[in-house]
Amino acid sequence: MTSEKEAYLVGVDVGGTSVKLGLFSEDGRLLEKWENPTRLGENGALMFEDIAGSVMEMCKRRGLTRSQLRGIGLGVPGVVDARGHIERCVNLGVSDCVPADELGRHFPGTPIRCGNDANLAALGEAWRGAGRGVDHVVMITLGTGVGGGIVTNGKLLTGFQGMAGEIGHMAVEPMETRLCTCGGRGCLEQYASATGIVRLMRDALEESDAPSLLRGKDSFSCKDVFAACADGDVLAKAAVTKAVRYLAVAMQHIAQIVDPERILIGGGVSRAGDELMRPLRRRFRELMKLQSKIPQVRLAQLGNDAGIYGAARLAKESENS
Amino acid sequence: MTSEKEAYLVGVDVGGTSVKLGLFSEDGRLLEKWENPTRLGENGALMFEDIAGSVMEMCKRRGLTRSQLRGIGLGVPGVVDARGHIERCVNLGVSDCVPADELGRHFPGTPIRCGNDANLAALGEAWRGAGRGVDHVVMITLGTGVGGGIVTNGKLLTGFQGMAGEIGHMAVEPMETRLCTCGGRGCLEQYASATGIVRLMRDALEESDAPSLLRGKDSFSCKDVFAACADGDVLAKAAVTKAVRYLAVAMQHIAQIVDPERILIGGGVSRAGDELMRPLRRRFRELMKLQSKIPQVRLAQLGNDAGIYGAARLAKESENS
Repeated sequence: MTSEKEAYLVGVDVGGTSVKLGLFSEDGRLLEKWENPTRLGENGALMFEDIAGSVMEMCKRRGLTRSQLRGIGLGVPGVVDARGHIERCVNLGVSDCVPADELGRHFPGTPIRCGNDANLAALGEAWRGAGRGVDHVVMITLGTGVGGGIVTNGKLLTGFQGMAGEIGHMAVEPMETRLCTCGGRGCLEQYASATGIVRLMRDALEESDAPSLLRGKDSFSCKDVFAACADGDVLAKAAVTKAVRYLAVAMQHIAQIVDPERILIGGGVSRAGDELMRPLRRRFRELMKLQSKIPQVRLAQLGNDAGIYGAARLAKESENS
Repeated sequence: MTSEKEAYLVGVDVGGTSVKLGLFSEDGRLLEKWENPTRLGENGALMFEDIAGSVMEMCKRRGLTRSQLRGIGLGVPGVVDARGHIERCVNLGVSDCVPADELGRHFPGTPIRCGNDANLAALGEAWRGAGRGVDHVVMITLGTGVGGGIVTNGKLLTGFQGMAGEIGHMAVEPMETRLCTCGGRGCLEQYASATGIVRLMRDALEESDAPSLLRGKDSFSCKDVFAACADGDVLAKAAVTKAVRYLAVAMQHIAQIVDPERILIGGGVSRAGDELMRPLRRRFRELMKLQSKIPQVRLAQLGNDAGIYGAARLAKESENS
């Protein structure tokens, strides 16, 4: 229940197909979450109108006053600079836009802040997920692509252009001939994403005549590769080993550069659980064996809710700014 | 001249053979610098006694009162954790020590802070050197080893154990068979340090019969390799190209992870100037060609004074803490 005296935070995770929203207590308890389809068009105006309407409706239903709403945080799938400006966000059909200002028109006086969704997922996990109680956390999200976020001293590291943590395009393989979606070659994303792992499996099938559970199949998913791996499929194991090798090297680099206490692995690929985490931890420890304290490697805990948690946490920060 | 009304900072860079000291105005003008030999022994007690005596003597000579000394910063060649604790510093013969407390006995009431020397060199360059006016700066120091420091939002990134920026041991070459001094294999330091570049040149001479200015020489330095390179020596060029390739990849990774506005190159190897910087900038730009804004790559400016500048800047920070 919401209380008359207490203050609340709203976290919003804006995606290209749906908008996730969450109401949080100030100490980070998720009280209610809901989801709406994303209405694209008019450079985001429809989308912000919908978000505002949805938040207002919730406040009304719960009898929350404007002053009880301490802040709203917004996560978007694009680069947000230090002033909250987005140059271009293809998935949302938005360009040259300050989302906090757009939404702010509907909530005069309420602090609103906006950040990159992968960064906010890291902040959410650091606040109330697998990084709880830890000040230096890196989160790696392995999905269709590879994203990341870095929390140091409990705060998000955003960098000069708001691009810190964009680890998917670390150039980990100088010999790669195929192009990454970014136009580069040899990006981490080409190996450690769901699509990357499927591609590594296809390569393994082509390069070898060894029997495989996935041989002859027209199409298979990353999940299928891990399932075959669990069943002892040699080629699937080789594909996963290759993905893990690149990911572990990237993690070693991240550890040397930002010195986190804990590295979290999230996103769809992380659902493979031990089948991913066991070889990943082993390889990472080999590369880090000379460090006095090796960062812990853990599965993220908040799943798809990490973004709304992180957005709410960002809104909380705005209290003092 | 020092003035009665003004406040001052002292920056101290403690090395295994000598201690560099500098007196600074609060806005970072270096007013005087001097150097003493390092007296090792008694877990650092002699060294701290010498530093205290030297600072006091300077204050007396200049007529500076205790209250005019706003802070003292100390840089040490080792890992300093968030509480200023050093577990072990081989070069200084010190273990389980809080340098700020040791020096603090001689300066009751004066704020004293301690940090890692490579980190402080980065902070110094960001404050008054080649990173002046820039909030997000990475400095890479290419000397006997490879060190680094990261400044984000104008503050030093230290990480969980105080090891952020220890980029010399990024594992950039998985195929390396030779051991790094750290016990690992394929560390950046094995290629991009002065010793690394000399080794790459030796390898080039062994692996090829091509004529070279350095062939037949019993020993040569990194400076000699760059000089040969400037004279058109094909093998020297190959060695430098290899070093630059690893360094550029490490810089690409650093850029993706922390998103700096500027990357500074310092240390003895950077004295090669254009002979290093031209191919390094070219290779780095190739790897970063898809970024909207590519970090600038510049030579550091403060040379051996970067450490005392950074130590003074750290002392300045302690004012508000």
